[in-house]
Amino acid sequence: MDDFLYRSVGQNLAASIASGALQAGDRLPSVRALCRERGLSLATAVAAYRWLEAEGHIEARPRSGYFVRAPGTPLTRSTVAERPSEARLIGTSARTMRIVDAHRRADLVPLGAACPEASLFPAEALRRHMNRAALRDPDLIARYVMDPAGLPALQNAIARRLAAAGTPVAPDDLVITLGCAEALNLALAAVARPGDTILVESPTYYGLFQIIETLGLRVIEVPSDPVDGISLAGVEAATRVAGQVQAVLLVPNFANPTGAVMPPERKAALVAMLNARDIPLIEDDVYGELGHDGERPPLAKHWDRRGEVLSCGSYSKSLAPALRVGWIAPGRYRERVEMLKFRNTVATPPLLQAAIAGYLDSGGYDRHLTRLRERFRHQTARMMQLVDAHFPAGTRLSSPRGGFVLWVELQAGADTDLLAERALEHGIALAPGSLFSQSDRFRHCLRLACGQPITPRVEAAVRLIGQLAAAL
Amino acid sequence: MDDFLYRSVGQNLAASIASGALQAGDRLPSVRALCRERGLSLATAVAAYRWLEAEGHIEARPRSGYFVRAPGTPLTRSTVAERPSEARLIGTSARTMRIVDAHRRADLVPLGAACPEASLFPAEALRRHMNRAALRDPDLIARYVMDPAGLPALQNAIARRLAAAGTPVAPDDLVITLGCAEALNLALAAVARPGDTILVESPTYYGLFQIIETLGLRVIEVPSDPVDGISLAGVEAATRVAGQVQAVLLVPNFANPTGAVMPPERKAALVAMLNARDIPLIEDDVYGELGHDGERPPLAKHWDRRGEVLSCGSYSKSLAPALRVGWIAPGRYRERVEMLKFRNTVATPPLLQAAIAGYLDSGGYDRHLTRLRERFRHQTARMMQLVDAHFPAGTRLSSPRGGFVLWVELQAGADTDLLAERALEHGIALAPGSLFSQSDRFRHCLRLACGQPITPRVEAAVRLIGQLAAAL
Repeated sequence: MDDFLYRSVGQNLAASIASGALQAGDRLPSVRALCRERGLSLATAVAAYRWLEAEGHIEARPRSGYFVRAPGTPLTRSTVAERPSEARLIGTSARTMRIVDAHRRADLVPLGAACPEASLFPAEALRRHMNRAALRDPDLIARYVMDPAGLPALQNAIARRLAAAGTPVAPDDLVITLGCAEALNLALAAVARPGDTILVESPTYYGLFQIIETLGLRVIEVPSDPVDGISLAGVEAATRVAGQVQAVLLVPNFANPTGAVMPPERKAALVAMLNARDIPLIEDDVYGELGHDGERPPLAKHWDRRGEVLSCGSYSKSLAPALRVGWIAPGRYRERVEMLKFRNTVATPPLLQAAIAGYLDSGGYDRHLTRLRERFRHQTARMMQLVDAHFPAGTRLSSPRGGFVLWVELQAGADTDLLAERALEHGIALAPGSLFSQSDRFRHCLRLACGQPITPRVEAAVRLIGQLAAAL
Repeated sequence: MDDFLYRSVGQNLAASIASGALQAGDRLPSVRALCRERGLSLATAVAAYRWLEAEGHIEARPRSGYFVRAPGTPLTRSTVAERPSEARLIGTSARTMRIVDAHRRADLVPLGAACPEASLFPAEALRRHMNRAALRDPDLIARYVMDPAGLPALQNAIARRLAAAGTPVAPDDLVITLGCAEALNLALAAVARPGDTILVESPTYYGLFQIIETLGLRVIEVPSDPVDGISLAGVEAATRVAGQVQAVLLVPNFANPTGAVMPPERKAALVAMLNARDIPLIEDDVYGELGHDGERPPLAKHWDRRGEVLSCGSYSKSLAPALRVGWIAPGRYRERVEMLKFRNTVATPPLLQAAIAGYLDSGGYDRHLTRLRERFRHQTARMMQLVDAHFPAGTRLSSPRGGFVLWVELQAGADTDLLAERALEHGIALAPGSLFSQSDRFRHCLRLACGQPITPRVEAAVRLIGQLAAAL
């Protein structure tokens, strides 16, 4: 079909309408008549009428044909422009999405969301692995995937790494997901039903609240120490009465936002307590391989005797942020998680899995991790120095041993919602403490992302935030 | 087109059939011959035959023409009651997963799940587009994605196709998803809360029950005609009392499993009714571009005046099954759908989006679709012949005008759950009718997938199923 011909036919008819030669309500020639009259192909005539319709000049009346529209009643252009009022978001989700939106703006200094810089990751090697896999096996693109669990090659590679970290999991007991986000959604949907209550540490990553909220679940927060993690006494008290809590959801290794790591004996005690009370534990291990000193803390699953720990991880923070390949080791909930995975996204695109598996099998991952951890350690340390130097006296800081976020506590009474607003006016995106709890407890706190190199621009931004904080 | 003429032509031919002038199995004149004989327009002749088909007098056999049906075998007009079933919680997931599992076994003849064969898709061209995109922009692998909506290049390409199909949607009003499955999950989560009731057509694709069930929703089934789709009277009755139904979920174009297409005037009437009653409509258009005769039926969204139609589509059945790229045009629920997308999978991997966008922009898609439709048409027609030849007398068949599944109705009392079990013992995977409803209404029905070439192995399998069916 001639791409220009249909348009010129359409414009020609539009001119007839504009001139009054064709008037509102007039019936246009049938498609076939138009073909005959102008020597057009059927496709061109149809395209011309569709163009006129899209432009609002004519309307199709089913079974009758095409008619000239009354002026002032253009159809589709204006239905797009004058959209009906949108359903607006409320609560945590709306605030979270504002953070997300801010990070889409390239002009902002991105200190809010925990996104590591792209140059830290081996894009070229991953591209080669992916391309090689697709050349070898076109089915990775063209064959409808009916296996929600994942590619055996990647299941094997992840199982090997978990075994090396002290937590053997059978490859078959892993389900590959779209990043850790999907893994956490599946885990929660597997163990809880709408109306159930989930126990989380406080402060905790705002994305977890969003998942909990949209699944129709309730939340209980238990205080978490920035060094050792969640209070076991708090968990004990909250779970003492049977049926009050249906699952616990934690980031035991390099928690977000505090950087806390639960020591092994605390993980063991927590799992024993929850096992005894028949309460599943969902652990988000997305930062587990990002310890600054190279230490890889064990997963809580290591102490699980009953298949009641669902461990979730991802390569989005450590290897390939835009491929969004994650995993879940769902213990005794494997069958249900596979079913939920199937209905949620059917399967994780196998080509993405093949790229990650190829890279892991090539042996370069540990070298890459060593460099990455060193970068995150360095950037986090530099950010700590900057906060020390520029923030008001009395400001307190977390001492993360892994990951790439810093938790900052300003003077009592400081309002970081206000600070974030003012920072945004100066082109700086921040994550205020109120996002990390449903309570007001962290209103004077702030999370700073250290995933980006600390450039002079970032330094200037931190100095400015310090000044704004002092003026709160 | 004259609205009464086609009907009087149809009634005239129906009278010839009733009188015996035209007998069961007789071939009717071709559409063009009918035009000549009676001085009709093409549209009127086609409409007359479709009316006869819808009324159960004749059947279309692809590549062969129209034939007079055996008396007493009109399909399902009469078999469905107009009263919707009661709302109830459902338990399909386990059975669905058995079908999925069966299709992972390479040794089975796959007549159950609707998976087209891999060789039908341009894997090599997609690989080149993907690799080129990754070479040009390593961020497509390495940059953490904070845009849940999708790549503008793909949003634009999809918006162009929708406009060409008569339904202009602004590119910004599209959210790219992990296949149609994620789109449907997001759509349902956007408009309904746990405990709400969703109206679906009956029979309907079992995967929809699975999504509804796992979101904690209830379902009402309204009978669907294998030619025209869902009963409007049934929808009217079920939605008459405000608050009883929170959303309607349909496949208006080439429904799965019946192949029904809602005619434009029925779509218009449905949308007008639901708009007036403030009930969102979720339409699954995954088969919309797979019409056997190249016809691309309009989306129901075309008639939406209130932003209350959420249209979902995908390239998994038409272009790249293993890349799992789909989309949703969520109308006034855009903000909520973006938020839900973010918490579900954060974003669709941009490299997959770039591959699809590159292919669509290259202009090869329409040529590919032409070949694909022809293959599906051919395979479906061949399957119909095989069923005709080998199934027991009294077996009735749908006449799908698109897609690649066939709906088969065996003799009353036949138990296709049993048939599927026996077929599996012989190495054949089947989808029994009971999967397609929460009621027992389709226990004697069966869906046959025609996405694979009809090899001698498939022929032998259909012959065997026919024998097993006769012995039920």
